[in-house]
Amino acid sequence: METNNYSDDVIGRARVQDTPELEAYYKELETLGAGALWKVANDIEPWEPRTNSIPMLWKYDDLRSLVLKSSELVTPEQAGRRVVYLVNDKRKDVSAAVGWLYTGIQVTRPGESTSAHRHRASALRFIMEGSKGYTVVDGNKIMLEVNDFVITPNSAWHEHGVEPDGQTCIWQDGLDIPLVNALEANDYAVYDGKQPLVKPINHLPLSYSCAGLIPADKTWDKPYSPLFKYSWSKVYPALLDAQIVNHPDPFDGILMQYSNPLTGGHVMQTMGAAMQLLPAGFKGKAHKHTGSFVYQCAKGSGYTIINGQRFDWKERDIFCVPSWAWHEHHNSSDTEDACLFNFNDLPVIEGLGLFQGRDYTENNGHQLI
Amino acid sequence: METNNYSDDVIGRARVQDTPELEAYYKELETLGAGALWKVANDIEPWEPRTNSIPMLWKYDDLRSLVLKSSELVTPEQAGRRVVYLVNDKRKDVSAAVGWLYTGIQVTRPGESTSAHRHRASALRFIMEGSKGYTVVDGNKIMLEVNDFVITPNSAWHEHGVEPDGQTCIWQDGLDIPLVNALEANDYAVYDGKQPLVKPINHLPLSYSCAGLIPADKTWDKPYSPLFKYSWSKVYPALLDAQIVNHPDPFDGILMQYSNPLTGGHVMQTMGAAMQLLPAGFKGKAHKHTGSFVYQCAKGSGYTIINGQRFDWKERDIFCVPSWAWHEHHNSSDTEDACLFNFNDLPVIEGLGLFQGRDYTENNGHQLI
Amino acid sequence: METNNYSDDVIGRARVQDTPELEAYYKELETLGAGALWKVANDIEPWEPRTNSIPMLWKYDDLRSLVLKSSELVTPEQAGRRVVYLVNDKRKDVSAAVGWLYTGIQVTRPGESTSAHRHRASALRFIMEGSKGYTVVDGNKIMLEVNDFVITPNSAWHEHGVEPDGQTCIWQDGLDIPLVNALEANDYAVYDGKQPLVKPINHLPLSYSCAGLIPADKTWDKPYSPLFKYSWSKVYPALLDAQIVNHPDPFDGILMQYSNPLTGGHVMQTMGAAMQLLPAGFKGKAHKHTGSFVYQCAKGSGYTIINGQRFDWKERDIFCVPSWAWHEHHNSSDTEDACLFNFNDLPVIEGLGLFQGRDYTENNGHQLI
Amino acid sequence: METNNYSDDVIGRARVQDTPELEAYYKELETLGAGALWKVANDIEPWEPRTNSIPMLWKYDDLRSLVLKSSELVTPEQAGRRVVYLVNDKRKDVSAAVGWLYTGIQVTRPGESTSAHRHRASALRFIMEGSKGYTVVDGNKIMLEVNDFVITPNSAWHEHGVEPDGQTCIWQDGLDIPLVNALEANDYAVYDGKQPLVKPINHLPLSYSCAGLIPADKTWDKPYSPLFKYSWSKVYPALLDAQIVNHPDPFDGILMQYSNPLTGGHVMQTMGAAMQLLPAGFKGKAHKHTGSFVYQCAKGSGYTIINGQRFDWKERDIFCVPSWAWHEHHNSSDTEDACLFNFNDLPVIEGLGLFQGRDYTENNGHQLI
Repeated sequence: METNNYSDDVIGRARVQDTPELEAYYKELETLGAGALWKVANDIEPWEPRTNSIPMLWKYDDLRSLVLKSSELVTPEQAGRRVVYLVNDKRKDVSAAVGWLYTGIQVTRPGESTSAHRHRASALRFIMEGSKGYTVVDGNKIMLEVNDFVITPNSAWHEHGVEPDGQTCIWQDGLDIPLVNALEANDYAVYDGKQPLVKPINHLPLSYSCAGLIPADKTWDKPYSPLFKYSWSKVYPALLDAQIVNHPDPFDGILMQYSNPLTGGHVMQTMGAAMQLLPAGFKGKAHKHTGSFVYQCAKGSGYTIINGQRFDWKERDIFCVPSWAWHEHHNSSDTEDACLFNFNDLPVIEGLGLFQGRDYTENNGHQLI
Repeated sequence: METNNYSDDVIGRARVQDTPELEAYYKELETLGAGALWKVANDIEPWEPRTNSIPMLWKYDDLRSLVLKSSELVTPEQAGRRVVYLVNDKRKDVSAAVGWLYTGIQVTRPGESTSAHRHRASALRFIMEGSKGYTVVDGNKIMLEVNDFVITPNSAWHEHGVEPDGQTCIWQDGLDIPLVNALEANDYAVYDGKQPLVKPINHLPLSYSCAGLIPADKTWDKPYSPLFKYSWSKVYPALLDAQIVNHPDPFDGILMQYSNPLTGGHVMQTMGAAMQLLPAGFKGKAHKHTGSFVYQCAKGSGYTIINGQRFDWKERDIFCVPSWAWHEHHNSSDTEDACLFNFNDLPVIEGLGLFQGRDYTENNGHQLI
Repeated sequence: METNNYSDDVIGRARVQDTPELEAYYKELETLGAGALWKVANDIEPWEPRTNSIPMLWKYDDLRSLVLKSSELVTPEQAGRRVVYLVNDKRKDVSAAVGWLYTGIQVTRPGESTSAHRHRASALRFIMEGSKGYTVVDGNKIMLEVNDFVITPNSAWHEHGVEPDGQTCIWQDGLDIPLVNALEANDYAVYDGKQPLVKPINHLPLSYSCAGLIPADKTWDKPYSPLFKYSWSKVYPALLDAQIVNHPDPFDGILMQYSNPLTGGHVMQTMGAAMQLLPAGFKGKAHKHTGSFVYQCAKGSGYTIINGQRFDWKERDIFCVPSWAWHEHHNSSDTEDACLFNFNDLPVIEGLGLFQGRDYTENNGHQLI
Repeated sequence: METNNYSDDVIGRARVQDTPELEAYYKELETLGAGALWKVANDIEPWEPRTNSIPMLWKYDDLRSLVLKSSELVTPEQAGRRVVYLVNDKRKDVSAAVGWLYTGIQVTRPGESTSAHRHRASALRFIMEGSKGYTVVDGNKIMLEVNDFVITPNSAWHEHGVEPDGQTCIWQDGLDIPLVNALEANDYAVYDGKQPLVKPINHLPLSYSCAGLIPADKTWDKPYSPLFKYSWSKVYPALLDAQIVNHPDPFDGILMQYSNPLTGGHVMQTMGAAMQLLPAGFKGKAHKHTGSFVYQCAKGSGYTIINGQRFDWKERDIFCVPSWAWHEHHNSSDTEDACLFNFNDLPVIEGLGLFQGRDYTENNGHQLI
């Protein structure tokens, strides 16, 4: 039923030849804050999804020393948050790493802590280095370890720090600041002083620590996950469990979504996150879909081919896959598994009915580089 | 606004004095399949919820040998299922332990297995003794250990057994057979032969083994929990985790609900289940609420006072609390915690808008015995 | 995969022969409040849904004068509610018309009103005769006309009456009293005096009067329909609209469900209702399904064949179809449509996962009488 | 707890003074696709929501002749769709009228029709002039009259036209094209020929024509309203009904949302719509909230004060209110009501947790102009 050669010279696309009379007409429209749709229709109605971002990879070997250097150059008090952010070459105007997602690398030294604040934008962290780091979200203090994933949702007061007897912590921040700004809804408030702790340390992660077991009083009424922290010490064994009893997905290996245990949905309303295990020797096939993704390698090494370009990664490297870009993941090792963390805008894309995907069918599913 | 002395001699209750004329009228109505509401109104509209069940306790010391004896008296082939069921003295007509809930104790010897069948009624098991028991639900085989809780939902094919190198297993069955019969909706079918296994052993429990981590492909579309088995090896540590960071509830200690990780709701549509830890020395206060409950002591010992009557229990004892009965739980030990498993009809009671409760306010919240 | 000849002499059904040893065993079990499942299993696990009700029809020509007579025999003050209830010959113990549904016929004379009360059971009315009747639900007064359907939900204060300048009103009451009693959750309270009106007359029906248009403030938070009244003056034209653009369903003609405009679900949590138009000359095919139904003919005349028995009905007659009974509806007229109102327990049956149905395939879909 | 004077010279905001060392550091970061967050933080994290749009009003008296002229200058075949679109002076880069919403005015002459196409973007129409216009959505033909509102959702095939014996139709189109492009998810396909009609004319509006009455078969499974058309002939009387029994909201008079009768939610996943009646003499108070709105006056006349600027409107005029702009609506007439249609991005703003509002508290709630 659908004709699909993507030529604009067909019924149903704009094919008007400009004439002097039309040129005059356009000028008249312009004076009224109007225009002729057929002048822009083919441009604003592309045949397929179109991204403004390019694939990029940020090597941790390059960034780490600069990130640490920031801790010598500025204090948290001066900087607000001492963060090096990663910016897509095509999205500098909105400070995004890909699509409408922001990411940065934050360093906190033992004994340091940020001031508390909140914003309509949502945030998440993935821990890269250090020990005895913590976050305090709405008066709940949560301790963090390497490869833990933690959320600081929309409009929750939050602050972070490292205990005096800990080790310098580095973590990746993910935020939807560009999206919330684009939707003209962001705000910001600073907390006057430190948040008082309202619950024992790790109250929420310990109250929801077992799959399928929840507090019977059912007092949680927030639109985000009450679990808050997803510990690597539990997540990695679960990936191995899942690997025992499931065939790896041809595109994504063992792909598990971080979810809200009270809804089975995404952890927050605007950003999702997932962890995937690429078994030893895994050679993923290529597909593309809507949604923007920021990845961090949590374990092992490998490479991802994005729109025909190969990006090699190892532990702590960060890279992005834009919307509708062909991509396939490969584990370089034949003996060890590799793990990729990602966060994404799937709650937006899925929630608004905008998800679609396509498999790469040529060349046995693998792109030519 | 409400007048509440529970006398029927008030406006709004039926207070008609019978007369010869009325008697004649009633007879005439009866010939037409009708009656006068005021003759029955006060009876069918009680001031408070009214139960047909009584509290009862079944001691495992008494039952165990009889349960084992059944394995000498009948075979699974003859019996269909070799089960001793526990029946409320006031609910023998519907074979219910309390309210519309059935419970029984099933014994299976090494190498034995039942034939496969299914029914519209839902079932659950709580493992009491033995090793290498298993259930097969819709082609998924799941291994069971002591204090594990497992579901076999509405209309799923299921069969059970014990591996030849296992030890005799005893488990508690819970079913909603009385309810589904009352709702005139039960059915039954036998499977011709053994179910073929469609997935590796423990496929589903291992695919959902970590709190907040779910398969990203989201193919589950059933109205019950994909986790199926809730392992004691994970549940008990989670109770201890929760105890660290929560004040015990004055009525129920640390009460955790088994839930569907994709909805945060009950494990099945008609029966819920929970596990609670009563800390050492815990003396629960009394309350009452709608809903029927069957308990099994999974650990420790204590007693429950139900409508002023004390029921002492220890590991493996089973007791019931009827709807709207005052009840309070006590741990007898000052040094060890006690754990109570229960299953109930809360999905029905809550889902139909029929839940209500009341706290016992006299005598500092404790009933007089 | 399923074997289905419904013989109990198959693997998977209980087939134990009693012996003296077993008889002794059963007695021993009985002393402990226990029994052998195989003694009752085949009975409590029927092959197909089994009802306790029989089909019945109540002719309005027979009942009307008796209903009116009640208004001479007792006052609303004495009777609480002056109602003749219709009772299934097999459900007299629970005062049900069919399954767990109660129905009655209430008469109110001009200037009379009942006192206000509430109960956990839910209620609904379908207006049969009269003018200027009204109901007051939680302080909202709603005027009623013939063939209007109105709800008085679970725990809402309610009272009814007829304006002094109205005409004697007769309406059908439907309640889930038997169900809520069976679930041991019913309660009752009388209101001290008359409810003050909190809103203008017909506030809620007038606020939701147009399909797809709702108050933008979204303050409604109750688990039942905010529309309350479904006016025949709007419902009948909508049936005609639907008839123009839809083929009649072979079983039910033009079958429309009364629904909550904020959820698309049933009007209340425990009872649903529907109106169906049988076009002139309509000869419905037979099917059976779970769920209990009470019908009233709102327009025209016809007959329904239930389990091979023919029940002729005309305007105002009431009849019931039990769970899993074969039934087919016929319009007797070749020139006029007929309309059947029904209320049912589908919210319970569907919500608990207990709905199933089967079409009658023999004899071109029509039962032999 | 919150300090709120909006000065960036506080703890929690970036306050780093640049130094030569820092300048060198920034350059080094830039070579790695990175930057220092504190350089941009205060800009990307505004204290309050910030819009990129300005309020604008488009007078129909100015536009109408130009719109009609388009029907002389180009054919539908050439233009794809013959539409004059209205563009915000600050959003020309994305062809949006306000925020991420597109709007245009389309003219179709008797006997004309567009070719069928579909796109991931959603569309809606509000009819301004003419008779016997129609839309065909997924094979369902729907007739349109003045002030009717109709949807053509996400990925549904659609085409429009005017019957040969109708009168030239002019309608307002609303689309989320800018949003779906921004989210990098738009697509487009043309239909090869005309869609065959799969149902009688007006099948869906006539199947759902009565509030609270829905087809009992429940086959609808789409994430948008099955009603499709909201007829002015029903909507306006419903506004009058609602006015009888409700106090006008101080900000919005009688504000009714077009909704999906199966969910009570918005008509589509990305765009909502509403109709409001400003009673005769209504002087609305000012508030602001997130979300972008495009209004059209459907009846009467009045003015809206937006961020202190007065915009006078009468029937058919179109204006916009950007996110977080103060706005208040006034009916100019003391004798006739005025009606404003609007469409908006509330499904996005609410669904992503980004809605917030504030009332104007000074000057008795009215802005100074």
